[in-house]
Amino acid sequence: MHSRPRTPSSRSKVLVLGAGNFGSCLADHLGDSEHDVNIWSRHERFVEHFNIHHRNPDYLKDHEFSTNIHAVGPQIPDADFIKNMDVLLFAIPTQALRDTLIKLQPSLTADKLPLLIFVNKGIETSTQALTLEIIVDTCGSHVAKMATFISGPSFAKEIVRRQPTSVSVASLTESQAQRASELFHQPWFRCYTGGDPIGLELAGALKNVYAIAAGMADGLGFENNTRAGLITRGLAEMTRIGTAYGASPLTFMGLAGVGDLFLTCSSPTSRNYTVGYRLGKGESLDDIIRTIGSVAEGVTTAKGVKKIIDEMGLSAAIANGIYEILYEGKQVQVGVQELMCRPPSRELDLPAQAGEPARRLLGKLGMESWEG
Amino acid sequence: MHSRPRTPSSRSKVLVLGAGNFGSCLADHLGDSEHDVNIWSRHERFVEHFNIHHRNPDYLKDHEFSTNIHAVGPQIPDADFIKNMDVLLFAIPTQALRDTLIKLQPSLTADKLPLLIFVNKGIETSTQALTLEIIVDTCGSHVAKMATFISGPSFAKEIVRRQPTSVSVASLTESQAQRASELFHQPWFRCYTGGDPIGLELAGALKNVYAIAAGMADGLGFENNTRAGLITRGLAEMTRIGTAYGASPLTFMGLAGVGDLFLTCSSPTSRNYTVGYRLGKGESLDDIIRTIGSVAEGVTTAKGVKKIIDEMGLSAAIANGIYEILYEGKQVQVGVQELMCRPPSRELDLPAQAGEPARRLLGKLGMESWEG
Repeated sequence: MHSRPRTPSSRSKVLVLGAGNFGSCLADHLGDSEHDVNIWSRHERFVEHFNIHHRNPDYLKDHEFSTNIHAVGPQIPDADFIKNMDVLLFAIPTQALRDTLIKLQPSLTADKLPLLIFVNKGIETSTQALTLEIIVDTCGSHVAKMATFISGPSFAKEIVRRQPTSVSVASLTESQAQRASELFHQPWFRCYTGGDPIGLELAGALKNVYAIAAGMADGLGFENNTRAGLITRGLAEMTRIGTAYGASPLTFMGLAGVGDLFLTCSSPTSRNYTVGYRLGKGESLDDIIRTIGSVAEGVTTAKGVKKIIDEMGLSAAIANGIYEILYEGKQVQVGVQELMCRPPSRELDLPAQAGEPARRLLGKLGMESWEG
Repeated sequence: MHSRPRTPSSRSKVLVLGAGNFGSCLADHLGDSEHDVNIWSRHERFVEHFNIHHRNPDYLKDHEFSTNIHAVGPQIPDADFIKNMDVLLFAIPTQALRDTLIKLQPSLTADKLPLLIFVNKGIETSTQALTLEIIVDTCGSHVAKMATFISGPSFAKEIVRRQPTSVSVASLTESQAQRASELFHQPWFRCYTGGDPIGLELAGALKNVYAIAAGMADGLGFENNTRAGLITRGLAEMTRIGTAYGASPLTFMGLAGVGDLFLTCSSPTSRNYTVGYRLGKGESLDDIIRTIGSVAEGVTTAKGVKKIIDEMGLSAAIANGIYEILYEGKQVQVGVQELMCRPPSRELDLPAQAGEPARRLLGKLGMESWEG
C-alpha cells in the first residue's frame, strides 16, 4: 500500500546522536527516506557491529537497517565532521544532554547552524530544567530559538515497519519546525508543526507520571470508566501544570499530549504503566525496580514534577498522590480513596498567568512572551 | 472500599424520562444515593415488570435496582406530577426529544422550574439542531439557559456496580450546573462543572464518527502508533468543528471530549467502533447494519456532520473520508491512502471566529456571546 518512499526535495546529511531505541528508529526512517545518515554511539561495540551487520545489537534486534546509515564513534565527531552536517538529531538521555552540548558548542557556528532536532524527553533532575533551558545555558539563546523538538505517539518497533505514525514538531522559529517536518515527512510518517516547544517537552515528560496512575487503577481492578476518567483528569492536570509553566493549553490536546498519553496508558508494554500496575497489585516499588532492572522514567519525573508543583503552588492531586505513594510510603488504596473523596470542582481551572519557571526561561531567551 | 453512600444534603424528587441503558443506570445511581426516583417509560410492559421485580427487562438485565425507584407510564406524567418534581432528567433519544418537550412545556412554570438535566447525545437529523436549540425552540430561551447537560466516559453497566466514574456537567447558568453536580456527586461518581453546553453536546455527538474511524484502522490491521495518531487528529478535527460552531476548544480536552473519545475508541463492545472495524475487514455497510440489527449512532451523525462541515466551509478530512466511505461507496483502502498523502500542516488550526450555526443559536437565546 505504501512501498515507494517520497524522494526528499534535497538529500540531507544527518548525524543522529545516540543509538538507543528511539534514535535508532529515527535514523532508520531518515535512511529509508534516502538521506545520508550517520549514527553516533559512545559504545565501540555498537559502531563495529552496526557497520558490519546493519543491525543494532541492543535495540530493535530483528530489524535490518538501511545500508545508507553509517555508525560513527565512540569519540564524539570533531568540528570538521559537524560543520559538514545539515542536521543534528539529539536522541540521548536528558541527563546526559548538558555535557554533550558543552562538548559540541564550539563546533556550532552561528552563521551556518545545522538544523537541530531534539527528541529526548524528561526534566534534568539536578536543575528541573527542560531541554530548551539546557540549550540556552550551553549554547545561548540564538541556538535555543532555532532548536526543534519532536514528540508524539511513536513506538520505535512500529516506525521501522512503516506503520503510519504522526508526530508534533515544535520550535520557537516556525521556519525551522517546517524544515524538520519536511525532512521527516512521508505518507507513513506525518509531521504536524507548532510553536510551543515548552508545552511539547512538558507533555512528553509529564505523561509518564500519569501512565503510572493509569497502570495503578488497572492493577487495583478498576474498569473502563475509571481508566478513561483518570486519564482525562490527568490531562487536565498536565495542562494546568504546563500552562503555569508558560505553555499553551492547546498543545496538550495534540500528538505530544493526548496522543502520547493515550499510547502510553494503553500499552501494557510501557514501563511506566507496568510500574503502576504492579504497585496496584500490591508489590513494593523496590521489588518492582529490582525485577525491571532500572528505574522507569515516570518514577524520576514524579520527583521533579513535585518540586515544580510546590514551587508554583499548583493544585495537582494525581501527581501529588503518585509522589506520596512512590516516595512517602502511602498505601495505594489510601491514595486512591483520597483522590475519590475530593469535593466537586470546575472541570478546567487554568492558572491566569505563567509562573516563575516561565519567567526565568523567557529572561534567559531575551523574550517578553512565547509569541516572541 | 466505598460502601457508604454520602447522604444528600436534601432528598430530591426525581423523574427520569426514558428507561433505556443510560436512563436506567442514572435512575439507579440516584436511587442508590437515596433520592426519591421515578422512571418513565412509554412501554407498559416495562412499567409493570419494573415495579414488581425491580429489574429492567431490556437493559442491565443482571442488575437489581434500588427499591426507592418507581416506574411510571406509559402515558407521560401530567402537570400535577411534573410540578411536584425537583428534577427532570431527559434520557430519551434526540430524535424524540422535540415531541416530548412540546408535550411537557405546558407543565413547566417559569417561577418554579425544576432542575432540567439532559443526557441524550447526537444531532436532530431533520434540522441539524443540538439539544440546546431544540429546548429553545420548544420551551423558550429562559428554559434553555437553565438547562444542564451531562456527558463523559460512562458505561452504564459499570455505573450500576459503583465503578468510579467521572462526568462533565455543563450549563449556561453556572448555579444550575452546580445543582446537578451536587445531586449526582458521590465518591464513586464525580461531577466536574463547566459553562459550555454546546461543546459538551458536540463532543458527545462527534466522537461516534471518530470511533468508526478508529475501528476502521484496527480492522485494516494498523497498530498502536496509527490508532493513537488517528484519535488525536480526530480530536483536533472535532475541536475545529466545535470552535467554528461556537464551542470552547478546551471543552474537547475534558471528560465529554477526550474522555469519552478514549472510552469509545478503546472498546470493542462499542457499536460505532464495531461498524468501523468490520468495514476495515472488508464487509459492506448494508451487511453490517443487517447483522447488528440497527444503525449505529455515528453512521447517522456522519451525515449531519457532513452538512455542518460543508455549511461552514471547514477542513475536516477524517469526517469527510468516513462520509465518503459510508455513503458514496469509496473503498476503505482508498480513503485511508488519501488521508495519509495529505501535505504537512500546522497541528491545531482553529477558525478565528464562530460560524453561522452559532450566530443562529445565539440569536434564538437572545445572547451576544456564550459568556452571556
